[in-house]
Amino acid sequence: MKTFLSGIQPSGLQHLGNYFGAIRQHIASQDETGTEGDENEHFYFIADYHALTTCRDPEAMRMQVREMVVTYLALGLDPDRVTLFRQSDVPEVCEITWLLSTVTGMGLLERAHSYKDKLAHGRKPTVGLFTYPILMTADILAYDSTIVPVGKDQVQHVEMAQDMAGYFNNTYGEVFVRPDYRLPASDKMARVPGLDGDKMSKSYGNTLWIFEEGKKLKKAVNAIKTDSREPSEPKDPEGVLLVDFLELLLDETELADWKARVREGGEGAPGYGHLKARLIEGIDAAFGPARERRRELLADPDELERILARGADRARGRAAATRDRALAACGLR
Amino acid sequence: MKTFLSGIQPSGLQHLGNYFGAIRQHIASQDETGTEGDENEHFYFIADYHALTTCRDPEAMRMQVREMVVTYLALGLDPDRVTLFRQSDVPEVCEITWLLSTVTGMGLLERAHSYKDKLAHGRKPTVGLFTYPILMTADILAYDSTIVPVGKDQVQHVEMAQDMAGYFNNTYGEVFVRPDYRLPASDKMARVPGLDGDKMSKSYGNTLWIFEEGKKLKKAVNAIKTDSREPSEPKDPEGVLLVDFLELLLDETELADWKARVREGGEGAPGYGHLKARLIEGIDAAFGPARERRRELLADPDELERILARGADRARGRAAATRDRALAACGLR
Repeated sequence: MKTFLSGIQPSGLQHLGNYFGAIRQHIASQDETGTEGDENEHFYFIADYHALTTCRDPEAMRMQVREMVVTYLALGLDPDRVTLFRQSDVPEVCEITWLLSTVTGMGLLERAHSYKDKLAHGRKPTVGLFTYPILMTADILAYDSTIVPVGKDQVQHVEMAQDMAGYFNNTYGEVFVRPDYRLPASDKMARVPGLDGDKMSKSYGNTLWIFEEGKKLKKAVNAIKTDSREPSEPKDPEGVLLVDFLELLLDETELADWKARVREGGEGAPGYGHLKARLIEGIDAAFGPARERRRELLADPDELERILARGADRARGRAAATRDRALAACGLR
Repeated sequence: MKTFLSGIQPSGLQHLGNYFGAIRQHIASQDETGTEGDENEHFYFIADYHALTTCRDPEAMRMQVREMVVTYLALGLDPDRVTLFRQSDVPEVCEITWLLSTVTGMGLLERAHSYKDKLAHGRKPTVGLFTYPILMTADILAYDSTIVPVGKDQVQHVEMAQDMAGYFNNTYGEVFVRPDYRLPASDKMARVPGLDGDKMSKSYGNTLWIFEEGKKLKKAVNAIKTDSREPSEPKDPEGVLLVDFLELLLDETELADWKARVREGGEGAPGYGHLKARLIEGIDAAFGPARERRRELLADPDELERILARGADRARGRAAATRDRALAACGLR
């Protein structure tokens, strides 16, 4: 049996880049069974403790956490099959963080890329930003996670978790399970274009919200960058941004057909308006049901809290057992 | 009403230097009532989380924590009037530590004397050693402590707690109570001589255990440094180490009498043997009843656990309320 752990930053409204670049794979991993067909375990947590290193607005924090839970649930994460919870509902990770910090050398944290990057981007050097990898390690180790699906930029964090688990186990005996990371199987979907053709990113202001619909969706799709070439002019589909978007949503056969018609040009070739209409249809088909689920969830905050409480219960049970092992090993029990 | 907080390092067997330099005042503060005669609150915790930064031997840790609890109880700390507990029985302090670390700049910790001192003494720079002042702050703030009795070398830690409480309150509103430190009323008792006349200290190997008795006590007292001057030779009592010891134990009248006889010399002057005999008597009188209580406590580990569990309950109630305020303020609840 494998135990998967996925941390989710509560970063507010999610766009298509987030979806195709991360969320989709995140959610898909709930379907993964063991090689022998045995059940795997899946832990998903909303990293609200971590988010405090960047967000100091309590109202925004609440909104972003709620939005993230609702986003994952609406998009298909199944709280009956996975353990979905808020990080701060499992305070045992803070205890484990302290225990790990007593066996971790300063050098390890000083070598962390993410800390150096954040300072280079002008962030104030707070202790939370610096010790963040230890909290992340505690999250990983608390649930005896064996697989942590990550992007390339997060590999070092899992390696640091391996190191810290090693320091602790070498000092006090086998307490923590050594985790492994797993990179996405393919990089193909990693780059989602923004409305202006650049990478889709909140900081570029070129995003399309996953749950956008109706007039606003139409307006956003209309904003996708085109040029003044006539529909009949033959074009390389590689250079048509709308085709890049359709690529995310259409099946291969249909996509090949659109591309062929763009390439050929002439009377039967689609104009940008056609491509936009098809894109809106595709988005409606892909996300329409999820929009509906999102509305239902937001209308029932008690049900949301019940889901999170159930996840917290399961997660705390595991984390408390790990914490107890760790405390006993170092003589605090 | 004032709320006193005293942290106790579980540093194993305690000697007379510890007793007269710290423990006695520590325990005496339980008697302090408010200026209006109102009750004060007193929290005393055994700092076992902190001790992990120096002790990595689980058996030694258990022994040292138990020894420290028993030492304080035997010497008169009254668990019915004060809240006595193990730090790690209140894991809420680790949560508060994380919250504080997100508002604390690295510079504050980098300026901590105690960290620099420890590195200068050859200690390995671990993250626990570095972030220790934040855990200490969390301990102070968790119980809304208003007074933290400390030695001079600990003043900076309370000032750091004031700073961190300020950072958090400025960011999120009034959550934490600003603590004040209190230095010992008099430095008179601070320097307790060791058996060799140097300051009594474990690292000098010149200590006398508080609960020493019988032959071992006699042996230790015999090891107190003297010289070959005859009893009848008049001596400045300031230069007689045994008199320094008697000073800790005898009342002023009797002490003045011994000093006068040492100073005068002659037939009636006491020899070193006399002073030693009186010192042993004094130690027996001062610590005999405590030795007995210590034996009883060690013989009843269940009772010890009951005392600690009661303290933990009271302390956790307070710390959880503070933690809840802090979480709500930053939007995690």
